[in-house]
Amino acid sequence: MIDVTLDKDVFEERLRFEGGLRYHDQHPFHVRMHEGRLSRQELATWVENRYYYQTRLPIKDALIVAKSEDREFRRAWAERLAEQDGSRKNGDRQPSGGLELWLALAEGVGLDRRRVERCDHVLPRVRTACDRYVSFVRRATLVEAVASSLTECFAPELMERRILSWERHYPWAADAGRAYFERRVKRARVDATHGLDFVLSHAVTHEAQERCVEALITKCEILWELLDAVDAAGAPVREIAESA
Amino acid sequence: MIDVTLDKDVFEERLRFEGGLRYHDQHPFHVRMHEGRLSRQELATWVENRYYYQTRLPIKDALIVAKSEDREFRRAWAERLAEQDGSRKNGDRQPSGGLELWLALAEGVGLDRRRVERCDHVLPRVRTACDRYVSFVRRATLVEAVASSLTECFAPELMERRILSWERHYPWAADAGRAYFERRVKRARVDATHGLDFVLSHAVTHEAQERCVEALITKCEILWELLDAVDAAGAPVREIAESA
Repeated sequence: MIDVTLDKDVFEERLRFEGGLRYHDQHPFHVRMHEGRLSRQELATWVENRYYYQTRLPIKDALIVAKSEDREFRRAWAERLAEQDGSRKNGDRQPSGGLELWLALAEGVGLDRRRVERCDHVLPRVRTACDRYVSFVRRATLVEAVASSLTECFAPELMERRILSWERHYPWAADAGRAYFERRVKRARVDATHGLDFVLSHAVTHEAQERCVEALITKCEILWELLDAVDAAGAPVREIAESA
Repeated sequence: MIDVTLDKDVFEERLRFEGGLRYHDQHPFHVRMHEGRLSRQELATWVENRYYYQTRLPIKDALIVAKSEDREFRRAWAERLAEQDGSRKNGDRQPSGGLELWLALAEGVGLDRRRVERCDHVLPRVRTACDRYVSFVRRATLVEAVASSLTECFAPELMERRILSWERHYPWAADAGRAYFERRVKRARVDATHGLDFVLSHAVTHEAQERCVEALITKCEILWELLDAVDAAGAPVREIAESA
């Protein structure tokens, strides 16, 4: 039987190709966001629904930590938990993790912080998509779960474009947005490198590599579905606005 | 129907009673350890097997973190991960988490560090018992999983007795032991208070309280089984030694 396992560099290229093809930077909703064509209401709907996704991240990251037998890996991955939940170091009473910064962004786009925090206005399709991500990670092998996080490879560029676009088109929300997005630019680079190195060195059979590619595709589909749902929710409002 | 939900203080008393009754401080192996009646071989067998238990702790703690929807709780519980795995803060190249200290203890009792780290000499019954703990936590509700950690309430006293007993009876291993045990005395107090407060305020129905008591009993049985297995493994050697 021919060994069809890919060399590391070819495998990396394949992951970047399949991920890049499906990453949600090209979703019509993101395209409209970056072209400045979202209403305040649409932007707020996105922020509110995306918060639910944010809340799933520490949960799926803790599940990934629990899959590892390597304390060096666990230590490194646990930093993502601290990144999102904040840390209690230095006696901070209000630690500024990703969730906290996203709530500040929610306030920046005019939403009530407590309403967003309760997640009771999250669209059912968004909830289903995000929960599917957690379920996927729960059942996946460690390397597949890590592969599903490799959308991080594409995040910094999207964030950088977003910062510029918001400054130009949504200046009233740009500061609150930048606080979160700038942090993600730096952090996603570190996380993507760590995740990618792990996948490249641990998926060393053809089957494992294929499953990693599938995991990344699944994740891309989940992010895409989230935007589909947000886009569909805003559509009636948009049609009215556009016909007015 | 009569509400048989216990008041907080009565519930706490019940947990302390049921846990205290079954805690492994009274296990014959621990009794012999503290009376100075273990051979070097028996002590080493205990250290080597107990290391496998140590390796399960960050995994079950990450599973507990993943069960919580409250970032304040996750932040606090994630400290247990850092406690055991060590932290990369301050640029430490060799972080001194609980696992590292236990490996130093293993060396202190004459074991080869790498052999212990590989866990390939762990007794099958010990492995089964420890894996059962992780499975239990994986399936449990958050409050039950936390309740299963409440053996921490009894740990500081056991550790304090152990430090004194080792100084007297196993002076060649006392320093390495103290490094780990002293740290646990302090930490277990903090952890036990946090865990107990959580259980007392979150198990607010009769059924939930009963399930928490069951969880603590299950955990006590697991710790007891670990010592049963270690005790049984040492028995032939002991009999020879005693008849000699």
